[in-house]
Amino acid sequence: MGDIDVMVREVGLRDGLQLVKDFFPTADKLAWIEAEAAAGVREIEVTSLVPPRLAPQFVDAEEVARRALAIPGLTVTALIPNLKGAERGFALGVHKMNFVMSVSRTHNLKNVRREREVSLADLKRIVEARNALAAAKRPLIAGGLSTALGCSYEGRVPVEDVRRYAAAYAAIGVDEVMVADTVGYGDPAQVRAVFKAVLAEVGRIPVGAHFHDTRGTGLANVAAALDCGVRAFDATLAGLGGCPYAPGASGNVVMDDLVFMLDSMGLRTGVDLEKLLAVRRILERNLAGTELHGALARAGLPRNYVPAAARA
Amino acid sequence: MGDIDVMVREVGLRDGLQLVKDFFPTADKLAWIEAEAAAGVREIEVTSLVPPRLAPQFVDAEEVARRALAIPGLTVTALIPNLKGAERGFALGVHKMNFVMSVSRTHNLKNVRREREVSLADLKRIVEARNALAAAKRPLIAGGLSTALGCSYEGRVPVEDVRRYAAAYAAIGVDEVMVADTVGYGDPAQVRAVFKAVLAEVGRIPVGAHFHDTRGTGLANVAAALDCGVRAFDATLAGLGGCPYAPGASGNVVMDDLVFMLDSMGLRTGVDLEKLLAVRRILERNLAGTELHGALARAGLPRNYVPAAARA
Repeated sequence: MGDIDVMVREVGLRDGLQLVKDFFPTADKLAWIEAEAAAGVREIEVTSLVPPRLAPQFVDAEEVARRALAIPGLTVTALIPNLKGAERGFALGVHKMNFVMSVSRTHNLKNVRREREVSLADLKRIVEARNALAAAKRPLIAGGLSTALGCSYEGRVPVEDVRRYAAAYAAIGVDEVMVADTVGYGDPAQVRAVFKAVLAEVGRIPVGAHFHDTRGTGLANVAAALDCGVRAFDATLAGLGGCPYAPGASGNVVMDDLVFMLDSMGLRTGVDLEKLLAVRRILERNLAGTELHGALARAGLPRNYVPAAARA
Repeated sequence: MGDIDVMVREVGLRDGLQLVKDFFPTADKLAWIEAEAAAGVREIEVTSLVPPRLAPQFVDAEEVARRALAIPGLTVTALIPNLKGAERGFALGVHKMNFVMSVSRTHNLKNVRREREVSLADLKRIVEARNALAAAKRPLIAGGLSTALGCSYEGRVPVEDVRRYAAAYAAIGVDEVMVADTVGYGDPAQVRAVFKAVLAEVGRIPVGAHFHDTRGTGLANVAAALDCGVRAFDATLAGLGGCPYAPGASGNVVMDDLVFMLDSMGLRTGVDLEKLLAVRRILERNLAGTELHGALARAGLPRNYVPAAARA
């Protein structure tokens, strides 16, 4: 990663907006993407390539992705639920596609309406289809392991199950494994156990982390994953997102607080905190009925704060 | 600690209420103390022995302390700013007194209006006065190092300064050192550096941690201190507390979220989470104008959650 130590990735336009009922105007989605890219965020999941009839919020997926792809230096990613979504992603030329499968059977059935083995077979076809493209047109494919730290239907999820599906992803040929605490059940001890198992299993494939802050442990889990060697974290500006089964609960890890913690630890993210905080205004003017989270936005930076990149 | 692994200590009646302008009724302070003790919290800082004319919230200090002392099994502690406060504590018979001094000069001058050397000389007199009491009447004395992870006037605080004052506390003869991130500037890397230095310095004297969640890093800092071997943490129910210079900012680490994280990690605190969450109602009915924090209270426990003490 060269001049940065940790990659922070904005997923609010997908994981955050998917629960927002009112359509977030396309122009403001683009303003959000552009402002965060200008603040130094280098990878943004800009949309979800689910069928628009299932998710009207993403009816503008093609336009958002195309215009995001025009931003220099930005890695544009999109969520894909299946091969059909992947084909839309191939056509758009997104840089990376994030495939999702839940480690827990019930959650996968509820979320993508199929058995995990069917998800894996679909991922295999997606990777094969990607490999058949001309080299310059091949996007990266990340395999997301949802509910890896707990499931709202099944409760605790065995580490062995996470390990097994990480191994399956590696065998299929994903370029990255994303371990996700979809419902915010994780704690730092569990994070260590799960990430150690996954890292040992997948070898040199990069492993990223996607935490939710549903029960307050989001940043503690980030710190634990950092200790394990993880260097890529998903987050959402103002902690947008949440859980359809826990109204009012906090959502994804707050991007602004995440960047502050990492930067304070001396880990360069490439992100300018003041510029990042200013992007919240785009959310404020569009999400009047949605609670925005974030401790840094309320408290401000510490006195005489020196960003990691400016330290001796 | 026998049947528990980590001691969690409620400081909301002092650190939380000291910023609350409306008087919190004595009867409800006692209801709060009794309900938390019944939920399994074993140590509560029940009041502040500052001059009542400076802090009308604590005009009932004697009554609160006396009635708390009647609760079987509860360790009753009180904050003391100076020898005069200590003498009130001796008369009451509290079990432990928490002396405070800020590591940063400016903060100590603003908070207790004296130089740090004057604070240390006063602490020496307090410890001597305590030692002169009959053995059965001697309270423990904890030495708090405020602003140990940053100062709202001076910014970063050198680890060397924290180490030096921890050494001074040990030389004076405190029974415990409390390292406090008074203004919520800390991050997990800094926590490791500071606690390692303090633990190496004070030897076998117990070292506890008092974190604020002002910038979202509270529980991450707890996890980092746990890694260093710290086994005693201050917190406030619903994260009561805050910072007079950052209106709306979050306050102390949220007790309910802290207990959840520790318990989820398999660390027994002795606290029943459901009973603890129910105590929030006493705060809700008295603090209509104060924002109550806490992720667990919104999201609820994970499905099929098994408390640490009930695991095989």
